[in-house]
Amino acid sequence: MVSPLSPLWDARAVAVVGATERPGALGRLPVSFLQRYGYGGRILPVNPSAGTVLGLAAHPSVAAAREATGEPVDLALVMVAAARVPDAIDDCAAAGVPVAVVMSSGFAEAGAEGAALQDEAVRRARAGGVRLVGPNCIGTVGFATGQVSSFSPLFSAEDVPMPDAGSVAFVSQSGALGYGAVSLALARGLGLGWAVNTGNEADVDAVEVLTELGGLHGCRALLGYVESLGDGEALRRLAALGKPVALLKAGASEAGARAAASHTGALAASDRAVDGVLRQLRIARARDVEELLDLGDAFEQPRRPAGPRVAVVTTSGGSGILAADAVAERRLELAAFSPATTAALDAIVPAFGSAANPVDITATVMSDPALFDRCLDVVADDDGVDAVVACFCVLTGDDVDRMVDSLARVAARTGKPVVVARTGADFLAPKAAAALRGAGIPGYPTPARAVRALAGLWETRPRAAAPTAGAAHVGAPPAGPDEVALKAMLAGAGLPVPRGRVAAGAADAAPAVAEIGGRAVLKAVVPGLLHKTEAGGVALGVTETDAAATYERLAALGGEVLVEEMVDGGAELLVGVAPTPLGQVLTLASGGVLTEVLDDAVFRLLPVTEEDAREMVADLRGAAVLHGVRGRPALDVEAVVRLLVGVSDLVRGWPGGYELDLNPVAVLPQGVRVLDAVYVAPADGG
Amino acid sequence: MVSPLSPLWDARAVAVVGATERPGALGRLPVSFLQRYGYGGRILPVNPSAGTVLGLAAHPSVAAAREATGEPVDLALVMVAAARVPDAIDDCAAAGVPVAVVMSSGFAEAGAEGAALQDEAVRRARAGGVRLVGPNCIGTVGFATGQVSSFSPLFSAEDVPMPDAGSVAFVSQSGALGYGAVSLALARGLGLGWAVNTGNEADVDAVEVLTELGGLHGCRALLGYVESLGDGEALRRLAALGKPVALLKAGASEAGARAAASHTGALAASDRAVDGVLRQLRIARARDVEELLDLGDAFEQPRRPAGPRVAVVTTSGGSGILAADAVAERRLELAAFSPATTAALDAIVPAFGSAANPVDITATVMSDPALFDRCLDVVADDDGVDAVVACFCVLTGDDVDRMVDSLARVAARTGKPVVVARTGADFLAPKAAAALRGAGIPGYPTPARAVRALAGLWETRPRAAAPTAGAAHVGAPPAGPDEVALKAMLAGAGLPVPRGRVAAGAADAAPAVAEIGGRAVLKAVVPGLLHKTEAGGVALGVTETDAAATYERLAALGGEVLVEEMVDGGAELLVGVAPTPLGQVLTLASGGVLTEVLDDAVFRLLPVTEEDAREMVADLRGAAVLHGVRGRPALDVEAVVRLLVGVSDLVRGWPGGYELDLNPVAVLPQGVRVLDAVYVAPADGG
Repeated sequence: MVSPLSPLWDARAVAVVGATERPGALGRLPVSFLQRYGYGGRILPVNPSAGTVLGLAAHPSVAAAREATGEPVDLALVMVAAARVPDAIDDCAAAGVPVAVVMSSGFAEAGAEGAALQDEAVRRARAGGVRLVGPNCIGTVGFATGQVSSFSPLFSAEDVPMPDAGSVAFVSQSGALGYGAVSLALARGLGLGWAVNTGNEADVDAVEVLTELGGLHGCRALLGYVESLGDGEALRRLAALGKPVALLKAGASEAGARAAASHTGALAASDRAVDGVLRQLRIARARDVEELLDLGDAFEQPRRPAGPRVAVVTTSGGSGILAADAVAERRLELAAFSPATTAALDAIVPAFGSAANPVDITATVMSDPALFDRCLDVVADDDGVDAVVACFCVLTGDDVDRMVDSLARVAARTGKPVVVARTGADFLAPKAAAALRGAGIPGYPTPARAVRALAGLWETRPRAAAPTAGAAHVGAPPAGPDEVALKAMLAGAGLPVPRGRVAAGAADAAPAVAEIGGRAVLKAVVPGLLHKTEAGGVALGVTETDAAATYERLAALGGEVLVEEMVDGGAELLVGVAPTPLGQVLTLASGGVLTEVLDDAVFRLLPVTEEDAREMVADLRGAAVLHGVRGRPALDVEAVVRLLVGVSDLVRGWPGGYELDLNPVAVLPQGVRVLDAVYVAPADGG
Repeated sequence: MVSPLSPLWDARAVAVVGATERPGALGRLPVSFLQRYGYGGRILPVNPSAGTVLGLAAHPSVAAAREATGEPVDLALVMVAAARVPDAIDDCAAAGVPVAVVMSSGFAEAGAEGAALQDEAVRRARAGGVRLVGPNCIGTVGFATGQVSSFSPLFSAEDVPMPDAGSVAFVSQSGALGYGAVSLALARGLGLGWAVNTGNEADVDAVEVLTELGGLHGCRALLGYVESLGDGEALRRLAALGKPVALLKAGASEAGARAAASHTGALAASDRAVDGVLRQLRIARARDVEELLDLGDAFEQPRRPAGPRVAVVTTSGGSGILAADAVAERRLELAAFSPATTAALDAIVPAFGSAANPVDITATVMSDPALFDRCLDVVADDDGVDAVVACFCVLTGDDVDRMVDSLARVAARTGKPVVVARTGADFLAPKAAAALRGAGIPGYPTPARAVRALAGLWETRPRAAAPTAGAAHVGAPPAGPDEVALKAMLAGAGLPVPRGRVAAGAADAAPAVAEIGGRAVLKAVVPGLLHKTEAGGVALGVTETDAAATYERLAALGGEVLVEEMVDGGAELLVGVAPTPLGQVLTLASGGVLTEVLDDAVFRLLPVTEEDAREMVADLRGAAVLHGVRGRPALDVEAVVRLLVGVSDLVRGWPGGYELDLNPVAVLPQGVRVLDAVYVAPADGG
């Protein structure tokens, strides 16, 4: 079955609503581009007042075009003034057009009136069974079919290096930046197969288009520029395709997010939550257009690292150090060579080089083809090496072919990805870039860029299956914020809370303390009292002797008194759940008074797997404290992992919008304890 | 007076020791390059067994060449085998050559034997009054003089785009990476004037060469690639020249630093200390070769921002958001426009653009030259704007000249730096890059790179004068680690320690507690007992009642008992001094148990000014806690600043190598208190 959005890149007939022959008019461009780039389908100019457009008969409406040709129209490009767009959508619906790309501007980006017009266009599209791309977009391109259904001035340039049959898809919310990026991709020779601009995303968004492109057999990699990310579940489906995805998500800073909000009307998600969720779903996050295209180059070649262990082979010590710096920055590892590899390298690498990793073979070895080959082989054959970064500097013409042959051979033989940093100008070796690309070896101008692209390959490795919905017990959320009831619910779900109970009265306080071993925390449980400690509502280290008096003092605050086991030592964490635009997100943070200041927090989309939970702990900046610092005992990381998965299971099925804070959670050498818990119901009371 | 190292780029005569005509030999290359690139001085091949080299008479020794020509020889390039280098140095000394560049390898980079040979070469050079550059280097270039005294294969390329009369100096410790970077600089048209490779740095290091180049009238900016940074004072002298400096310091990661150590034999400095000191000295730190060259492009144009406030003007909303993200990332600020600016922009920018910062003028305004000009003028004239970033995407040929004219005009008129992000391929506007460069407007392919380069301009702004040595009281360091004596010394220097004194005995404990208000901390002062708290040597909240008993318990640990004022509340910081390869460095860190885990520390070279101290506090990640978090009171930041400057003054003149830890320092709403202090004498006892 043809996928619903495939007319964006593979339509049998394209109607151009608002087509005109007038030089300089935007409505001329898609017609001329479809002609110029060899589109093989039917081009149908729609313009009631034009006889022909660029030699093609114009039709008064899309429906009339459908009628006149007797053939289905798969795609309409709508380029009329904003006010006339709703009627144009009706026309598309009448003609049975499944997808309309609304290129006109003057919609949500232009204020309230435009937003209403946009809503109306979407309403008509939905009523008429038309999927709407845009409005306020620059169109789409299928490179294999020559379908340049776009008005980007990029395609007016004299020499556009159009790719033959690329396997990389690029989808951009932004039109101008998107086609700027497309031009850079074409200039570097990246094998683009599809380019789609989604504009205001009134109906179809970038993630949906990427997901559909990812389902195509010939599509090998997915790149996206997005300013807003709607639904975490949609991202999960995109990631589940198993093809590498890289997203440049703009609005990372607060200032950037404000700009995003005023630009697209999209509310900014908390950027760190976005970071965590993309990491969880194995989607690489690019920080700039160049990095996005660098990742495209890495994704285009078919080899994937089996692990994070990188061997660096360099003709320049300096490049090797810069590569090692980037390996650390991107959480890859410098491979530790086997003794056999080290011995073999010692025999090859000259005295003034280095046989450790990074392997500095110096320019001397480079001039000896057999030695260079042998060196690469030895390194790539080491079972402890998952990928190779080869660094060159002033590489001149003569050396290029030999180097490319060696690298391509070792990559093909071992199946391990090999990337190149060539820190030298093209004028030194004018054929090097094309030779590398032809051999399937991604090349970058600096060691850092090469390593970051390799890191993207590792970050997009497949993940273990997501938990199947419904596998865990699904219960109702808490009725209210009551700590005692909430802790009972946690305990019922097998999550560790301190032993203890509510004292029945002052006389019952000492027995309650005795039951848990003679040393207790007493807490005032008062509805609405969120900051118990500040209000004097918590007493630590209470014994049987002072239990009754302490009870009286706390009860005077107006509620019940909870007597709990005193938990000493260990580290404090926060575990929480909060709503974000991506959905309910699980948070793990370094706890105590510094939580809010130091912002050491990690986020994952719910539900989480054990693998997710383990990675959350590992990603915490303060993780070292869990593993025992300066002679302190190691703490129970496994219990933290169980707690995270347990919380994920507990909240399954709860309607979204709530907040849950387990803070602090004490992490002990054996086990964890949820010392305090707060639940905040969704604002709508749901 | 001619500067001592100027022969590296402006020699009257260059001797090439080991010159040969043999094709493929390295010894042929400098002679051929000097000839090819129009060097106007005398080229003196030195080779006892050659008659002529490339048409030039060869001499048996440098001394013989000096004799034969009767003219001084300013520079010798030494290219003979390592073992013969010491004798070649003697020959240079005999000929009165002031500078020898030893290009041969086989020295410290090749093991112990080579290191001994290197020491011998340096010894002979010093004895003979010869400055030695290298060994194991690729040579130096003066572009204005055509003095390509290098064997880099870069200069063998067919079309080398040599600059005319550049103003940017580039010095690299690494040869291959250095000349790779030079080729990239030439390819982008960066106006290089000088390129020097320092190799093993046995005598002359990169910072010395940069400092000397920075003293040249025609030198506008300094770029360096370094793997080791010796002396902080040398860096201070470099920074004091007042010319913008950017350093790519490799070995930022632990893995990279290990690679650096094995590569150069240099011990890696703590990289965060390097970060802090470079920031203090207003030296920009590049993280990659491209970023270093990007900074060179920004430094080459003469305008400097008066502040960190950036206006972004963009034809694409997406580029604007990416620019805003980068502004936040690099600690610049998005300018807040004046009401007049906002009103003027509202009148210009179409409804679907944005008149806030970033200003999205959309492609529509771009097509109207007068509106685009007016928009730029309004933004650049705002007193709250220190610099302008202009973002374009698919910019085609026709628009380029107009855009460049507008930008150059507004930059010249306002004196504010203007940088461009042009995220589109060169094939769209083949003349754009050259036109921008010609107009003195740095251009970058992405918003992030443009903003980072602008940030470098701001980071290299002049700093207030360094404190003059000897201005403060110079005292002797402590005799030992005794807390009581150390606190007395601190108090004597006006630094705030808790009130209190050593109790004369158990009977004196209660009076001592009474003297400071009836609530005290008692501390065991026992020589060698560093971890008092863990040893049970600290008692908090002691009153007159339990003073005697507590005294007895602490005295039993074997020392004196200190009775001190009890300091409650506030935040805890660490203030310390420690030796690094750059010199004694002042540290400020978030304190308490998390200090070592969270690594929230800021470093500055001693002595520090009040400006330095203020920036240290601002750079602390946990600085927010000082300004009052969640309704807690703001703490006394000024007292922290005074303490930092006070410590800097106190330790002035102390011989290096010691460690001083004031930890914790309690920061209160009014004032600070040094609660504990440890001094560790230098290992050599000095």
